[in-house]
Amino acid sequence: MLPVGATIGILGGGQLGRMLSSAAAKFGLKTIIFAPGDDLPAAQVANRHINANYTDTEALEAFANACNVVTLEWENVPVSAVETIEAAGVAVRPGAKALSVAQDRVAEKTFLEACGIACAPWRAVDTLDDLQSAFTAIGPDCILKTRRDGYDGKGQVRLNAESDLASAWTELQEAPAILEGFVPFDLEVSVIIARANGGEIAPYPIPENQHSGGILRRSRVPAAIPEETAEQAISMAKSLADQLDYVGVLALELFVCGDGRVLANEFAPRVHNSGHWTPEACLAGQFENHIRAVAGWPLGPIDLLYPAEMDNLIGDDAATPLETLLEQGSLTLYGKTDIRPGRKMGHVVRLLIGTP
Amino acid sequence: MLPVGATIGILGGGQLGRMLSSAAAKFGLKTIIFAPGDDLPAAQVANRHINANYTDTEALEAFANACNVVTLEWENVPVSAVETIEAAGVAVRPGAKALSVAQDRVAEKTFLEACGIACAPWRAVDTLDDLQSAFTAIGPDCILKTRRDGYDGKGQVRLNAESDLASAWTELQEAPAILEGFVPFDLEVSVIIARANGGEIAPYPIPENQHSGGILRRSRVPAAIPEETAEQAISMAKSLADQLDYVGVLALELFVCGDGRVLANEFAPRVHNSGHWTPEACLAGQFENHIRAVAGWPLGPIDLLYPAEMDNLIGDDAATPLETLLEQGSLTLYGKTDIRPGRKMGHVVRLLIGTP
Repeated sequence: MLPVGATIGILGGGQLGRMLSSAAAKFGLKTIIFAPGDDLPAAQVANRHINANYTDTEALEAFANACNVVTLEWENVPVSAVETIEAAGVAVRPGAKALSVAQDRVAEKTFLEACGIACAPWRAVDTLDDLQSAFTAIGPDCILKTRRDGYDGKGQVRLNAESDLASAWTELQEAPAILEGFVPFDLEVSVIIARANGGEIAPYPIPENQHSGGILRRSRVPAAIPEETAEQAISMAKSLADQLDYVGVLALELFVCGDGRVLANEFAPRVHNSGHWTPEACLAGQFENHIRAVAGWPLGPIDLLYPAEMDNLIGDDAATPLETLLEQGSLTLYGKTDIRPGRKMGHVVRLLIGTP
Repeated sequence: MLPVGATIGILGGGQLGRMLSSAAAKFGLKTIIFAPGDDLPAAQVANRHINANYTDTEALEAFANACNVVTLEWENVPVSAVETIEAAGVAVRPGAKALSVAQDRVAEKTFLEACGIACAPWRAVDTLDDLQSAFTAIGPDCILKTRRDGYDGKGQVRLNAESDLASAWTELQEAPAILEGFVPFDLEVSVIIARANGGEIAPYPIPENQHSGGILRRSRVPAAIPEETAEQAISMAKSLADQLDYVGVLALELFVCGDGRVLANEFAPRVHNSGHWTPEACLAGQFENHIRAVAGWPLGPIDLLYPAEMDNLIGDDAATPLETLLEQGSLTLYGKTDIRPGRKMGHVVRLLIGTP
């Protein structure tokens, strides 16, 4: 167990790092943010910011030497950065394994299936020929995605019977890709699960998630799913976390189909937007439990005190008059100065008190 | 209304400033701590720290120029510091009036009584002769306190029939003092009340407080007092806040007597230790509401979600094994490195779920 006053390094400087830093501070733990850029959301509230690139070995080593343990808030941190820190003798939780699997959609699906977790049909696509045969096998309703570096709907092309495969292939700049068969699902849910250093597991109640334009808009908990579906979903996430020997909070996004099937979409090796209601609605939120896990501490209680709803504030949503935003519920803003379309600026959580 | 991204200055660098800074950060507001010292609890989580004395006019002016509004987390900040900041054109909330009244026990009792708020019997004591006549009038069970600079039981001597008044007077170094008659009370309670810039009032549910050695040990909410006693207490705090034209959170400590009387002990022009359960047990905690008030924002909801209990971690309490502390409830630690007897190191909040 890391002692109070110890320092946790965080790779990445966005809002997730910001909320992790604040959760660490509540416990008297210090944080150092490692991320390139000025006035980053996380750096504003952390004890220190190292403004350097993830390929800057010297800066990474200085970072490692200043930290007792390191974690991350962004899944596209280069695995080499994690390896440099671990070579300097400092543990990174979660480690290179979870990161490398999560960074490549083909590795991810392969790993999920190896864990016994069902996914929607998929094919690896490295050439236009691959795309054509994959489309024949699992089309016509499907999505072509780059294997790496996609997020919030970026690096994706939706295909259907009329699609021009060659132009889709060009649109993704012929980058290594994956074709995923479209699954007619009833709802999207996610399992936010914390796993302690010793393997102890704490799965939060499952939220259902509404996306629009590839970006999460709203999460509502508990999801309107049968008990056995919830149990199946949690058992999938537990299996994934165990197989990765994962430490920290992990989010597994799932499709719940009308026929009762639960299919994995993807997972994030970090705290997750669809768990932003947890600090308000549970005794110990996802940020607190991630910090506890990374620090080698026991996990905190995850019982749902009230049903809850979280709305993201995206782009111009944040230009809503402040008084209106404050009326909507518990407001969290990320310290971002520029409003840009699609940019996550904050969120609002409502406890649905009196709701059955 | 201060816009998101604005900067709130905080005079004082302790745990209250730390929790105010974190509450401000949740709203995307920035904070600058003005206080002398290194590695202060508040400075660890704020955006910036000006390490200077409260008498350093130049530093105070630079501070004022960097802030949109200023507040305080310590009631012994010299009034001259507040005046310097206001002269530089920046509002201080609460202002010089509340501060100067709260800093002098005689001015405080005089003001409270002028507001129609009953206090235990008291006399100003400037000489040993004063002490003797005051003792005759309101003794023998009474407490001699310095008028200024006392906190957590410091600067106080308990007197009774056998007391040597001359030695008590010497013990307080003949400083201007007040003699307070001891009131046989049933319990100590406090009203934590937020007042917005426009006069809107939000009184939290009333906790009862247990002290030991002059230091708060435990607060439990709601206090076991009749509804009409609670209403009377809140009306006293409201009257005080209105008369001070107060902006922010204020705490009024009260004695509830067996005969139904409610008598004021003292008030603090700031967020208060006996309100540390509010972030966990209410939708908007005292730190959030203080920040909202100071920023000219509307106040947030103060309904009690669950009965709650807060234990202070004082001195060696913080040396309890971490695992044990974490089991006790929601843990907050203040980032203080040295454990010293009587030093407030952190607190634990338990929601009494299932308790009627």
